[in-house]
Amino acid sequence: MGLELYLDLLSPPCRAVYLFARRNCIAFELKDVELFKDAILGTSAAAGEGGGEGSAQPGPPTKVTLAKKVPVLKEDDFILAEGTAILLYLSRKYKTPDHWYPSDLRKRAKVDEYLSWHQANIRANAPKTMWIKVLIPLLTGQALPAEKLEEVMEGLGVSLRQLEGMFLQEKPFLVGSEVSLADLTALVELMQPVGVGCDIFKDRPKLAAWRDRVEAALGKELFLQAHQLILNIKQLSTIQINPQLKEQLAPVLLKMMK
Amino acid sequence: MGLELYLDLLSPPCRAVYLFARRNCIAFELKDVELFKDAILGTSAAAGEGGGEGSAQPGPPTKVTLAKKVPVLKEDDFILAEGTAILLYLSRKYKTPDHWYPSDLRKRAKVDEYLSWHQANIRANAPKTMWIKVLIPLLTGQALPAEKLEEVMEGLGVSLRQLEGMFLQEKPFLVGSEVSLADLTALVELMQPVGVGCDIFKDRPKLAAWRDRVEAALGKELFLQAHQLILNIKQLSTIQINPQLKEQLAPVLLKMMK
Repeated sequence: MGLELYLDLLSPPCRAVYLFARRNCIAFELKDVELFKDAILGTSAAAGEGGGEGSAQPGPPTKVTLAKKVPVLKEDDFILAEGTAILLYLSRKYKTPDHWYPSDLRKRAKVDEYLSWHQANIRANAPKTMWIKVLIPLLTGQALPAEKLEEVMEGLGVSLRQLEGMFLQEKPFLVGSEVSLADLTALVELMQPVGVGCDIFKDRPKLAAWRDRVEAALGKELFLQAHQLILNIKQLSTIQINPQLKEQLAPVLLKMMK
Repeated sequence: MGLELYLDLLSPPCRAVYLFARRNCIAFELKDVELFKDAILGTSAAAGEGGGEGSAQPGPPTKVTLAKKVPVLKEDDFILAEGTAILLYLSRKYKTPDHWYPSDLRKRAKVDEYLSWHQANIRANAPKTMWIKVLIPLLTGQALPAEKLEEVMEGLGVSLRQLEGMFLQEKPFLVGSEVSLADLTALVELMQPVGVGCDIFKDRPKLAAWRDRVEAALGKELFLQAHQLILNIKQLSTIQINPQLKEQLAPVLLKMMK
């Protein structure tokens, strides 16, 4: 059995894995997971442990999901979750070009530094825009107050200033003159607000120029293809949702956004 | 100039870096940073960019702190932040024993997987206990309602069940039969609730046995020394704090814990 990747391209870390594998011509079998749909159907995305293995649910079997989320890599009996871990594994296993994860100790450390900072900053802020603008209104039937979005955009603004000032600075890419896993991880996450109509690049010319460079390094066509779903996220609002499930999910979602 | 490490042993990632360097006999100059004191003095811990370089503040100069936090590694003109990035850099540079970050691709990926999961789970929950039990009452002069601690302990409980069920399972250590960066990173974080009187190991014999094994692998004496500050955190409550600063910090802290 070859390499299988369980991905939902609505999720930024899944897009990073997808783009990285495709850009580096790594052969894999794409296992399409619709986390969002599964959440609506109350299958794999609901929290909690246990659950039947190899059940007939639309997502990957419980055995595969590990933390009940995507991306997940499966290779024979080896199962790996967490986007960063998957990217690093692929880069080592398939010996991808050095610039993605430089063998130079200090450059590599700078990629690691960004990947760690990213989790508690960009990753902690950017996805909330999708919850507020699309998912919560869709699932709970009510919009959150405008201040909620302002608050999230404010937090994201702080992270973006740090991304520019501490990491990008005057360099073409986050860790020097070539694209790395840091740029890939950052950009896919920042496309989440863009997709829901919060164009964070509009008044940030330096970040916008960086985005162009990263897109070009990945291949514009491939980049667009990977982002098709998120750039058309508003179509989701036409989906009919079971009212009973709405009722179950509403308090959980509203608590999440407290 | 040799290796300098800017650390505040009240912080779990700093303790991980300290223990790793000491356990592996890596020579370094310890630059003691008192983040908490600096926060009270309104110097380095306050958010925002810019700031004078090489100023006479008690913490490291702004140039060093990067994200205004510790741990920070400095080696000549090379400055590295983020605990995970520092641990990985030290393991590579000083060629520490393989078990810390195994060269076997799949084992290494499993360490990466844990380190990534840790950020959004254990690291996202465990430190809140210190804020609730010690720092917020000390700085704002008021205790948070008991439900707040219950809520945090509930979230931490979910993470701990996953730590046990998904990662530790029936193995001696998180990624197999030997101690790795995963165990080190996990345990220092879990000592935060222990230090403030929430002994999460009490009713979890499997995790308690794992803790014993990790402590033994690090050296009990060294482990205790690194944890002296956090295990005596309640002494902090005797510190006199400037009332004006309390006033400034109170709303920020209360918002943080919303």
